[in-house]
Amino acid sequence: MVSRKLRYAMVGGGRDAFIGAVHRKAMALDGQIELVAGALSSSPDKARASGRDVFLADDRNHGDWQSLLADELRRSPEERIDFVSIVTPNHVHFPVAKAFVEAGFHVVCDKPLVHTRAEADALVAAVHKQGTVFGVTYNYTGYPMVRQAREMVRSGQLGTLRKVVVEYNQGWLATHLEAEGNKQAGWRTDPARSGAAGAIGDIGSHAENLLATVTGLEIEALCADLGALVPGRALDDDGSLLLRFAGGARGVLVASQIHTGVENDLRLRISGTLGTLDWRQEAPSELIHYPHDGPKQILTRGSPWLCESARRASRLPSGHPEGFIEAFANVYAGVAADIRARLAGHVAEPIAADYPRVEDGARGVRFIERTVASDASESKWTAW
Amino acid sequence: MVSRKLRYAMVGGGRDAFIGAVHRKAMALDGQIELVAGALSSSPDKARASGRDVFLADDRNHGDWQSLLADELRRSPEERIDFVSIVTPNHVHFPVAKAFVEAGFHVVCDKPLVHTRAEADALVAAVHKQGTVFGVTYNYTGYPMVRQAREMVRSGQLGTLRKVVVEYNQGWLATHLEAEGNKQAGWRTDPARSGAAGAIGDIGSHAENLLATVTGLEIEALCADLGALVPGRALDDDGSLLLRFAGGARGVLVASQIHTGVENDLRLRISGTLGTLDWRQEAPSELIHYPHDGPKQILTRGSPWLCESARRASRLPSGHPEGFIEAFANVYAGVAADIRARLAGHVAEPIAADYPRVEDGARGVRFIERTVASDASESKWTAW
Amino acid sequence: MVSRKLRYAMVGGGRDAFIGAVHRKAMALDGQIELVAGALSSSPDKARASGRDVFLADDRNHGDWQSLLADELRRSPEERIDFVSIVTPNHVHFPVAKAFVEAGFHVVCDKPLVHTRAEADALVAAVHKQGTVFGVTYNYTGYPMVRQAREMVRSGQLGTLRKVVVEYNQGWLATHLEAEGNKQAGWRTDPARSGAAGAIGDIGSHAENLLATVTGLEIEALCADLGALVPGRALDDDGSLLLRFAGGARGVLVASQIHTGVENDLRLRISGTLGTLDWRQEAPSELIHYPHDGPKQILTRGSPWLCESARRASRLPSGHPEGFIEAFANVYAGVAADIRARLAGHVAEPIAADYPRVEDGARGVRFIERTVASDASESKWTAW
Amino acid sequence: MVSRKLRYAMVGGGRDAFIGAVHRKAMALDGQIELVAGALSSSPDKARASGRDVFLADDRNHGDWQSLLADELRRSPEERIDFVSIVTPNHVHFPVAKAFVEAGFHVVCDKPLVHTRAEADALVAAVHKQGTVFGVTYNYTGYPMVRQAREMVRSGQLGTLRKVVVEYNQGWLATHLEAEGNKQAGWRTDPARSGAAGAIGDIGSHAENLLATVTGLEIEALCADLGALVPGRALDDDGSLLLRFAGGARGVLVASQIHTGVENDLRLRISGTLGTLDWRQEAPSELIHYPHDGPKQILTRGSPWLCESARRASRLPSGHPEGFIEAFANVYAGVAADIRARLAGHVAEPIAADYPRVEDGARGVRFIERTVASDASESKWTAW
Repeated sequence: MVSRKLRYAMVGGGRDAFIGAVHRKAMALDGQIELVAGALSSSPDKARASGRDVFLADDRNHGDWQSLLADELRRSPEERIDFVSIVTPNHVHFPVAKAFVEAGFHVVCDKPLVHTRAEADALVAAVHKQGTVFGVTYNYTGYPMVRQAREMVRSGQLGTLRKVVVEYNQGWLATHLEAEGNKQAGWRTDPARSGAAGAIGDIGSHAENLLATVTGLEIEALCADLGALVPGRALDDDGSLLLRFAGGARGVLVASQIHTGVENDLRLRISGTLGTLDWRQEAPSELIHYPHDGPKQILTRGSPWLCESARRASRLPSGHPEGFIEAFANVYAGVAADIRARLAGHVAEPIAADYPRVEDGARGVRFIERTVASDASESKWTAW
Repeated sequence: MVSRKLRYAMVGGGRDAFIGAVHRKAMALDGQIELVAGALSSSPDKARASGRDVFLADDRNHGDWQSLLADELRRSPEERIDFVSIVTPNHVHFPVAKAFVEAGFHVVCDKPLVHTRAEADALVAAVHKQGTVFGVTYNYTGYPMVRQAREMVRSGQLGTLRKVVVEYNQGWLATHLEAEGNKQAGWRTDPARSGAAGAIGDIGSHAENLLATVTGLEIEALCADLGALVPGRALDDDGSLLLRFAGGARGVLVASQIHTGVENDLRLRISGTLGTLDWRQEAPSELIHYPHDGPKQILTRGSPWLCESARRASRLPSGHPEGFIEAFANVYAGVAADIRARLAGHVAEPIAADYPRVEDGARGVRFIERTVASDASESKWTAW
Repeated sequence: MVSRKLRYAMVGGGRDAFIGAVHRKAMALDGQIELVAGALSSSPDKARASGRDVFLADDRNHGDWQSLLADELRRSPEERIDFVSIVTPNHVHFPVAKAFVEAGFHVVCDKPLVHTRAEADALVAAVHKQGTVFGVTYNYTGYPMVRQAREMVRSGQLGTLRKVVVEYNQGWLATHLEAEGNKQAGWRTDPARSGAAGAIGDIGSHAENLLATVTGLEIEALCADLGALVPGRALDDDGSLLLRFAGGARGVLVASQIHTGVENDLRLRISGTLGTLDWRQEAPSELIHYPHDGPKQILTRGSPWLCESARRASRLPSGHPEGFIEAFANVYAGVAADIRARLAGHVAEPIAADYPRVEDGARGVRFIERTVASDASESKWTAW
Repeated sequence: MVSRKLRYAMVGGGRDAFIGAVHRKAMALDGQIELVAGALSSSPDKARASGRDVFLADDRNHGDWQSLLADELRRSPEERIDFVSIVTPNHVHFPVAKAFVEAGFHVVCDKPLVHTRAEADALVAAVHKQGTVFGVTYNYTGYPMVRQAREMVRSGQLGTLRKVVVEYNQGWLATHLEAEGNKQAGWRTDPARSGAAGAIGDIGSHAENLLATVTGLEIEALCADLGALVPGRALDDDGSLLLRFAGGARGVLVASQIHTGVENDLRLRISGTLGTLDWRQEAPSELIHYPHDGPKQILTRGSPWLCESARRASRLPSGHPEGFIEAFANVYAGVAADIRARLAGHVAEPIAADYPRVEDGARGVRFIERTVASDASESKWTAW
């Protein structure tokens, strides 16, 4: 194993951005990854000012991602970044990710991955061709108790799955924020930058990923009703779906950004013949288990009786709250483990290299596309 | 006002029944209503044994409802019942209710009211013709905090409604109970006794009533997916619906009796431009209010700042838990207030005579019928 | 078994009273007990008006308890009450209870039982001499999950007990209510009517009873700090105690009626070598169990895996909330079972006749007396 | 402002330690502070191995703190650390802290500060003489909602305080762990390394600090009952105190490490004439406010209506959980703001430089000493 921090560059995430700083904190947390280069904004001046804010050296603080890429390709292996982290608005993901992958770099990219299935397919193909690491920051699956849920479902503790309800409700877009100059609202409600979907892309894709990651169920058909319920909004801010899964299970997926006053209420319920699981992101250290033949159990992060995957995703003893950044950091820790294994010439240990991959991102793009198609259809069921 | 207890007869609710005893406790609670006659089972011997269990006098303890009705018609006004309470399995509701209404008696009937829209229309017409009191025990709307929610919605505290999610999840039918001789499971999963729907009729109808009572929203179109997920079951045990309301609001309704390990989780969330309300039947004394411009509030039963309708529906100070039976008793208290007002020659005060009426029951029957139709349809939307 | 309702008379509980109506509802709930006589107020006119409110016959609606007692003694066994329920302010408990016991009647009396240990001893002696039933309405121990906790502790599921924390916090006396003419506040803060203690008597006694009933621990020494924190108040409205139990366990007991905004927050935590239990009256259907070697469990009322004593104290399936009145009714159900067994010439079955007895009431009086003594002492420990 | 990361050295926190890694993560989180030197263990070999784990350069990776200090004193200002962070077991705090302070370094030290009041006084004097920054990692006061509570109390929103209850319960020492070779249990239950108190020093001191920080109340007298309830344990593992504050308020403080199965349940309740606050560390993003004249409110981290001090202590939008490490990081952020201000020749802005100081640490030492004295006393009250 290389005895040094991994080096990364960031694209996007400058002043006024929200999620870039979260990525940086998540990478900094464990002292295993360091920021050494960047092109932090699409505006060159803002990019460089933002780079100075985070103490980038001048010669690695770029005004655009193309010069960052060119510069890294020139550098020696002793200096060169180990990977790039792409945290721009959605429409920039594809060109940046494709260019870095094709140049042989490992990549982490925010979600939703790209705008179209064609782009997604191209990116998957490029990653497969290069054989590089490609992580997608579906950060919610980094929570230890999500990993515990996955293990309990996959090992059969719930029996045969019958019903899954996943909801992601927020209230922050309950007013016409984008008309007031709010930057986050602006790009997320703009089809040119956000893609064909609004809430379904921004948070519905998290819901889909959480459902798929934990249950492994495959959607066979879906029936969607999307609405732009705030007058004047260009993209959906509320969506509800009925789901049918291969094997016969049924599901409901709700994603809304106009659920006034609600903060970030992502919740997953999975019910099978032997029990039910219930997890809420706003209380992420708890997983409620309803076995069919005994009292409800509150499983908590940090407990010795959790599965290894959950235990290893935790940094603190139980009762010492971990949160969003730790979950995010777990995605990066998985990516880092995979990169470190490759640097050492190994295949990474699966539990260590546990992170959402480019295929997960591509499936999310398909989910968005199929949902938008269903919404436009008068037939009840739209096939996957 | 008549200075005596009101007198009632019960049809159904004998040994092995579940809900009849709840009705009796609800009526007994406040010392304002007394049981004086009954035909407590469709089996004459069981009927009379059950009547003795509840201390009925022999001459008012009948083997069938027809003899009960005939006997009451013979009695003097000083003895005669003020109303009848019908707590039989669903398929018996219609003939009994119709006969008592046509004989001029006030009636309380359990839900779902009847099996078909034709029956429902006939019953509504009979009640209108007789001008009698007819209550339907949608008991969940008797909770004080449901009344508070209704007042807050109707008075505009949530602004324009946009999204409603109502769920009713139970787990008790997660196994094939009806094959094991369970009486409650038996009739509820039998189309001949339960009607065209299972879970949607048994609990989905409660969800519909709660939604309609609190919000006043009218369903314009619905899209249903019903399933009999337990192998061998004759009726749906799980259903999910997308809803579109007049005026543009959207909704989701879920009713499931195979949500393993879950007890009786009826929950209503209503979101408007100014705020959101969240109420859960398993913690019925709390109503969570999310205003768009300030902290979440926990409104609790018994508080002086609640609306009059909520305050008057409460018997105990806040912090002294009330429950299911009190909510049930509030439905009966509304019926009793209406009957007492008529006995005194008045029109009942609206807040006192607050109970679900035959029209609510008929709307519930229509909901079940439309849901079953939608489930059978390949079109996305089925009109109301 | 006698095939009729038990008959009772009530002393106290007229207009303006609070708890009398709760007792009546609790007794009415199950249809097994009926009110036939009463002296509902210390003011004769109010007594009779109150009796008419609850439909007492004129000849059994008395202006004072002495005439009630005399009248009952004159009546035939077919008419005579089976027991009397005493729900007056505290200072009236002793003379009424003593007179009815000495006349051979079964009695239910509210808590705290009497004002002094001498009175308590006299009452215990009278009950023992007469051999009559005497219940004390420590209603909180009537909750099913309190009975479950008792069973779990007594059967050793927590191992050796080490620490008990019982708290009873309310906020309703946070202002000087008694100066504003509030009847409930008036007598409860008046030493002549309430006794030597305020909050410690009114609610601290419930905390003591809950602790003793569930754990069986005996207080060896206590250290109390009582305060009348609202200026002008004549009795304590806040008290905190350190406790030492026989066998080495430690405890804390807090009772406060000036915990502003808090409703009725009685909570018991019991910790032993093998686990901890946590029960809160405001969510009475849940008992949280923290085993030392596995996940937390939420035990819920109505579950088949509860002990028989808890199961039989429940009327509804799990998830259908029961509350304060049901717990109260369970105390009366225990008394009724004892009386019915005696009427039938049997000894009552212990699980059926599960109710707090005169000795529990006497221990509560001692607790109040010892607490007041400790508060006045400069020594740390006051022996029991 | 200096445009670089602050540099620090760590003493303690090597392999097998628990809290050192938390300090490092807390400092790394925001990308404003970097680890450049250390002496991570009292064992030289382990120290150096631990330093390599965290990528220390060989020439700054020391076998003991004395050589670290000497080396730093030799280095130029461009290289020299800005501060040292001391995360050793308690008995090592004093000599290290004193030496670094006397050498003119800024210091952050874990709690409890030192073993005796004499040591505490000496340290306070040294800090005052040098005029250096000295932070104590009472990390719980770094939570945003604790800062919100402090602001609400200090600005009078609760009125006059009457009752404070602070509890800190854990279960991890419910067995005789120190006899099984557990390192954390070993030093914490050893008087030579932990000081005169066990649970009261380890977690009771957090409770005292939380209470004092939020309320500003001064303890006038206390009454303590400490126990070593696990057989064979050398220091208290459970303690309960009655408190009397200047001005008349009353309090209860409980600290227990034998509350089986409980994780890290620090809770503070503060009640005044106008309302009550309730905060629990295990759900740190919520602060429950019980105003005397309206519904309970749930104040949540990240909300725009919080005070500036709370808002600035938050990194993520509401609903995106922050936890223990962020609170810890806020203490370090306060220290860093103070150091940066000094480097720039300014006085730090109070809201920025919000951290527990050496005087808080000294008061905590006095609290421990007075508690141990009270426990040994037969008088009820021990003066502060």
